[in-house]
Parts: sequence; C-alpha cells; structure tokens
Amino acid sequence: MKTQKIPEATIVRLSMYSRFLNNLANNGVTIVSSEEIAKGLNGSPAQVRKDLAYFGEFGTRGVGYNVRDLNEQIKKILGLTHKWKAILVGAGHLGTALINHKAFKTRGFEIQAVFDNAPQKIGQTIGGVPVYDVAELVDYVKREKAQIGIIAIPPAHAQEAADLLVQGEIKAILNFAPCVITVPPQVEMRSVDFTVYLEVLTYNVETNRK
Amino acid sequence: MKTQKIPEATIVRLSMYSRFLNNLANNGVTIVSSEEIAKGLNGSPAQVRKDLAYFGEFGTRGVGYNVRDLNEQIKKILGLTHKWKAILVGAGHLGTALINHKAFKTRGFEIQAVFDNAPQKIGQTIGGVPVYDVAELVDYVKREKAQIGIIAIPPAHAQEAADLLVQGEIKAILNFAPCVITVPPQVEMRSVDFTVYLEVLTYNVETNRK
Repeated sequence: MKTQKIPEATIVRLSMYSRFLNNLANNGVTIVSSEEIAKGLNGSPAQVRKDLAYFGEFGTRGVGYNVRDLNEQIKKILGLTHKWKAILVGAGHLGTALINHKAFKTRGFEIQAVFDNAPQKIGQTIGGVPVYDVAELVDYVKREKAQIGIIAIPPAHAQEAADLLVQGEIKAILNFAPCVITVPPQVEMRSVDFTVYLEVLTYNVETNRK
Repeated sequence: MKTQKIPEATIVRLSMYSRFLNNLANNGVTIVSSEEIAKGLNGSPAQVRKDLAYFGEFGTRGVGYNVRDLNEQIKKILGLTHKWKAILVGAGHLGTALINHKAFKTRGFEIQAVFDNAPQKIGQTIGGVPVYDVAELVDYVKREKAQIGIIAIPPAHAQEAADLLVQGEIKAILNFAPCVITVPPQVEMRSVDFTVYLEVLTYNVETNRK
C-alpha cells in the first residue's frame, strides 16, 4: 500500500463502489469493468481506476475486476471485515429512523443501545434496541467497548453528548446535530448537516439560473 | 464576481459560515475576524479568506467583517434571500424528523407537503404538514411550483419518486435513500448516505490504528 495521503473523496467513493459491487454480486455478476462501475455511480472510469490505484493493483487489464474479490479488498480497506459496535444518543424520530436504517446492519454496524433523558422512553425498546438513561452512557461505552457514537439530538445538548462519548473512550462520532462539535484529535468525527446539503442545491439552482 | 469554478467544498463551508454568523448576530456580536470564524468552525483563517475571495472583497483589513453584512452577502450567494418551497416523499420516521428539523425553517426551507402511499397516513398531518397520496405528487409540484423535493423512502422506490419529481419539474432533489439515483442534467441532486459517513469514520479509525 502506498503511504501517500488518500483524499477523503476517494474513501467516500470506495464506500459507494463497495455497495455497488454488493448489488452486482447479489445479482450473480462475477466480473465488472471500471466503465461499468463508473456508469453505475454516475462517475468516470478514470476516477474509478485512480481511486483503486491508491491501494494497489486490482483486476486484470482487458478482463476487468472480480466482483467478490474487489469488494472484499475494498471492505478490508474501509475496516469492514469485522463488525462495529455503535450506540445512539437520542431516541427521537431521527434516532428511530437510524435504528431502522437497513444499510447499517448490512454493512456491519450494530446499534446496540440508545440513550435518552426522557423518563417515558428509558426502559423501552426501539426496533429491538434498548433505551437507557443517558446517565449510564459513559459506563456503558467503556464496559461494552462501543466504538462508534451517533448523536441524533438537537444542537443544545450535542456537545454535552459528545463529551460523554469521549469520556467513555469512543473511537468515532457521527453527529447529526446542526452545530459545530469539538472533540480531541484521537476521536474521529464527521457531521451530517442536512441544511448544508440543501444550501449546496440552492446555490447551484441559483447559479444555473444566471 | 469571478467566473471561475467554485469548489463545492467552498459552498459547504459558506453554508457553515453563515450559520456561525447567525449565531454571532443573535448574541449581539457585530464585528468578526477570519481567525474567529475559523476557530468557530475548526478551520483555518486562510481557508476562510480564500473561500470568501471567490466572491469578492468583504470586510476591512485590520478591522474584520461586519457580521450582519457578511451573512447577508453569503445568504445572497447561496440563494437564501428568498424562501424555497420543498416537498417531502416519505412520511416515515426520517420524514418526520426532517419536518421537525428546526434548521430548515430558520434557513428559509418550507416543507409544504408530504407524499406517501400508505392509506393510513394519507389525510393526516405531521407537524402541521399535510400528507397526500403520492399519486397527487406530479400535479402538486407543478401547480405549487415546488422547487425542492426531498426523498426519504427506502431504496426500492427512490428512483420512482425521483422520476415523479422530475415529471413535476422540480428544480432540485435531496435524496436520503442509500442508492444511486439518476436525474436529467437540469435537475440538481445530492444524496445524503449515512453509511458512507460511517465508513469514512471506520477507515480513519483503522488507518490510525496501523
């Protein structure tokens, strides 16, 4: 493997290639070309080849890639050859949607517990996942060695939730609250901000109109 | 305004700068430096200056930016000086979370209607927003001149929903279904794929471990 810095956009696309390869494998396809991968993802074949070249030589020139092998290689790169223990903060509508999001389980992400501070939710289950008092979060994360914390609560308490996850020695945080959250450098964090996506769209609509 | 191609990452950051400036204005702050904006967003001052420089000269050297003026300029760039009519496909948990997502309304995005195919949901309201039969979608979008369609249904029917939105002459689509959707070039589309974010995190956790 080359030691150069891999662009995050490449990692994002690898994740999408892998899902596409999964679908192909499920449909009985065994060999695929970079052209076909590109077409399936509205991308370019050169981009597909460049993304894969960061990680070595895959496939055979003039033949293509073995679908299952390439998918296994990509999943290994992404750290998906083993399962990941995730916990969720926030038992609201978004939290419920995330628990029921089938793609998580397919990819090896298991939401094991939900934490909330609403007394009427604590002790219940959502999609089979138990809801615990947020006061138990730090102990739970430490004890169960949960690796990923997902924050699905309003901005007002999001930093507080992140602090608890960090205290529990979480490895990574996915934040859905529309606010900036600060975590120490050893914790990986990404935010999903729905509004930002909408504003990229409105910018493009306005710009094309001109 | 320069005519060069603006990187999408710059637009993403402009959206985040604007939210940060909103917060400052709400807290009575009138002047801000690029250093302060950078700090508020875990970014670099040089990046802030570079992002803004695509669109002209803002602020005064040695003084900083006028918070309200800069925010107004950014909102104008993003197309946020007027409201946007949005409709939602999917009255499930994610759809409900999106309707209740306060940041949308604050930024001028108004979800006016939800479309679903479940008889028990049609005719109800969610957070005050009426749920209609998906069979009425095309007519509604045309008649009301809705500009943004949000897809919050499972992958199996996402392309179908996108086709209906396109038929209704929607301007932009935000897709939450974890699948590739194809739309004609005149329609702006972005996908929010929760799993991709998780896989960027696991890649980074695995890479740092090595």
